[in-house]
Amino acid sequence: MILPLLLTLAMQSPVVAAPAAADATKSVTPSSVVASAPASAWVDVPADRLLVMELAGGRRVTIALSPDFAGPHVANIVALARAHWWDGTSINRVQDNYVTQWGDATEAKPLPAGIKAPARDYDRPAAGLAFRAMPYRDSYAAAVGHVGGWAVAEDGGRAWLPHCYGMVGVGRNLAPDTGTGAELYVAIGHSPRQLDRNIAVVGRVLAGMEAMAALPRGTGDLGFYTDPAQRTGIVRVRLMSELPAGERQVWQVMDSRAPAFADWIRVKANRKDDFYERPAAGLDICNALPPVRVRP
Amino acid sequence: MILPLLLTLAMQSPVVAAPAAADATKSVTPSSVVASAPASAWVDVPADRLLVMELAGGRRVTIALSPDFAGPHVANIVALARAHWWDGTSINRVQDNYVTQWGDATEAKPLPAGIKAPARDYDRPAAGLAFRAMPYRDSYAAAVGHVGGWAVAEDGGRAWLPHCYGMVGVGRNLAPDTGTGAELYVAIGHSPRQLDRNIAVVGRVLAGMEAMAALPRGTGDLGFYTDPAQRTGIVRVRLMSELPAGERQVWQVMDSRAPAFADWIRVKANRKDDFYERPAAGLDICNALPPVRVRP
Repeated sequence: MILPLLLTLAMQSPVVAAPAAADATKSVTPSSVVASAPASAWVDVPADRLLVMELAGGRRVTIALSPDFAGPHVANIVALARAHWWDGTSINRVQDNYVTQWGDATEAKPLPAGIKAPARDYDRPAAGLAFRAMPYRDSYAAAVGHVGGWAVAEDGGRAWLPHCYGMVGVGRNLAPDTGTGAELYVAIGHSPRQLDRNIAVVGRVLAGMEAMAALPRGTGDLGFYTDPAQRTGIVRVRLMSELPAGERQVWQVMDSRAPAFADWIRVKANRKDDFYERPAAGLDICNALPPVRVRP
Repeated sequence: MILPLLLTLAMQSPVVAAPAAADATKSVTPSSVVASAPASAWVDVPADRLLVMELAGGRRVTIALSPDFAGPHVANIVALARAHWWDGTSINRVQDNYVTQWGDATEAKPLPAGIKAPARDYDRPAAGLAFRAMPYRDSYAAAVGHVGGWAVAEDGGRAWLPHCYGMVGVGRNLAPDTGTGAELYVAIGHSPRQLDRNIAVVGRVLAGMEAMAALPRGTGDLGFYTDPAQRTGIVRVRLMSELPAGERQVWQVMDSRAPAFADWIRVKANRKDDFYERPAAGLDICNALPPVRVRP
């Protein structure tokens, strides 16, 4: 008997009613902690800090922007969205286990007046942030934890958004101050943390990653598509606040100051339930991006 | 000027000849270390420890098996390949940021005589392994490093293969001893290290990950496809040693005992070149899977 069952963090309902599951005490899991969190554990993401990207074929990708990190780049991105600059551009690069990247494939589309590449804003002072460190080691930073609804790394008094799966960054040329925000990418494989503090991270995909990560890989250098027909068109990119009322969604993120959030971290780091025999007693920050949901 | 250039570890040649690149001294990069490694740094992977999976449409996935870890499961998998058991089965589940899983969707196909689920072999004694620890922290294990051509985690005298992107494991039911090896999965997102030592890891995809990771995500529970037509057919799975001579490839992995390997780790952990301004001074084991190649 070969049951194709591999229980996961994201499980919402059992696939098969295996006898073992029927007999077991109901487990506390990360999902169950999220499901039972009170309304007070959730905070709304402002609608003018949400980008909604509509791809050819109708798939929708929702991205939260992080004004507290990479503020100048985020300001550019908001301005580009208000100018409808990405409409008609495309996804031009998909490199396996690395990034999906989008923007103007011609490299010739003029930017709106006033959009310039900011000075590097790859990290910021940790002072002033309500940083809640996790008690687990990280391979790249002295401490990792959360600020509000964001995963954050900290070292030497500086804080930054780590390059986790689903995080969005600003493509740039070799010189560090060459990224305007018009060219963006999202991490689609094991998190490329070596990019931390070498490039600006500006946000996180809240929904639609399955559209970005499942695209055919490009066969050119760096995963660029060699045939323009392989590109996925971007129909439009809008701020959520500028969508017609009927198309808007209110997104929420679990607040790292909420007691439910601390429970969620603890349970995630110490899974022992119907499936997990041996708790990890550890948690990678990129496996601990705060839960999000559409406001019920 | 918007150059869609994001230099990566895998870069083989420049995309654009930017002035900055032309002026710069040629950088030492992980790729350049691999390219200049002597033949003595490479060891052949035995052909009877390589699985070759041919998917509908002609894509080929090559998987190295790890007899030194999860030996009983690997023995089952070799027997299943010799019996051509996977021919005509399918990829049935793709869950974003988690796994792609394959096997018999009917759950009814009889196993060859003698194939039984082994007792759990999720880790093994560290003693006797030529373990080369990396000098970097890990979120889940006391030490991480390499043994031969494998990334390995170690804690309390036990060693195991970590659940990194591209690593292959054995699906099982809730009870820990229910996986035979007939149902396999590969990690396709940020590495789900919480599964370490809760499930058997048996190998690594050496080539063809772009086929496994770019499949459409299933929309059923746990990412199972709801419509059988969505499954990707598996035409055949063979040991490399059983393929016709004209279809065989000799795969090599960089030996962790080679001086070039130590150079590669050091350069990967401390990138400073035309693109990287700030070396990470750290390296996640899942960003340090040993380089592989087809023998030139």
